[in-house]
Amino acid sequence: MEQLKVSTKSNPNSVAGAMAGVLRQQGVVEVQVVGAGALNQAIKAVAIARGYVAAGGIDLVCVPTFADIEIDGERRTAIRLVIEDRLRRPIQSDVVIPDEIIDVDALAELVTADPSTA
Amino acid sequence: MEQLKVSTKSNPNSVAGAMAGVLRQQGVVEVQVVGAGALNQAIKAVAIARGYVAAGGIDLVCVPTFADIEIDGERRTAIRLVIEDRLRRPIQSDVVIPDEIIDVDALAELVTADPSTA
Repeated sequence: MEQLKVSTKSNPNSVAGAMAGVLRQQGVVEVQVVGAGALNQAIKAVAIARGYVAAGGIDLVCVPTFADIEIDGERRTAIRLVIEDRLRRPIQSDVVIPDEIIDVDALAELVTADPSTA
Repeated sequence: MEQLKVSTKSNPNSVAGAMAGVLRQQGVVEVQVVGAGALNQAIKAVAIARGYVAAGGIDLVCVPTFADIEIDGERRTAIRLVIEDRLRRPIQSDVVIPDEIIDVDALAELVTADPSTA
């Protein structure tokens, strides 16, 4: 799962754009934050990203959990946010992959048959 | 929708208990916060409440949105968190209500037949 780093200084709009990008590619994105300031920027970004992906029929939800991490040898409690579609549907991507099993050999033939590579 | 007030000074464990209580009764609960400190306590409470309701098969998710509110005549942007089951299923309560239509007269008879009330 792709993990975004968010700090107090992060711009919520930029983070939201990155969130939406990863969501579209992978269907889920994770954010890990330490401290109230970073969490604030992350949650603002989630609220903004909801608007970005809503047009694609995605109902973005956020699942917060605790995570024990180590920073400079010190144990800290981070908040981990898993951000995904409510129904965990894959998010519409520009590349449509059919549900049928892909015949890799057939794909290779298509690539070979591409005049630009001939 | 029941709204919980959370501030910087709120105890996340207490807020989590209140969240779980409202969730069990009403299936959804809303939290509105202003400021990073209050949001931090609210999100910690959501992470704790997830554990409280998980035993009942509930997959608690959180939907953050912005809300324009007025405090002492000043406009502020709050964060609103809608907290509910991922599939918006009603949450198991201690009182089990059967799916069949309840016969109120039959219930009244049962109450009258209770020896402690006779």
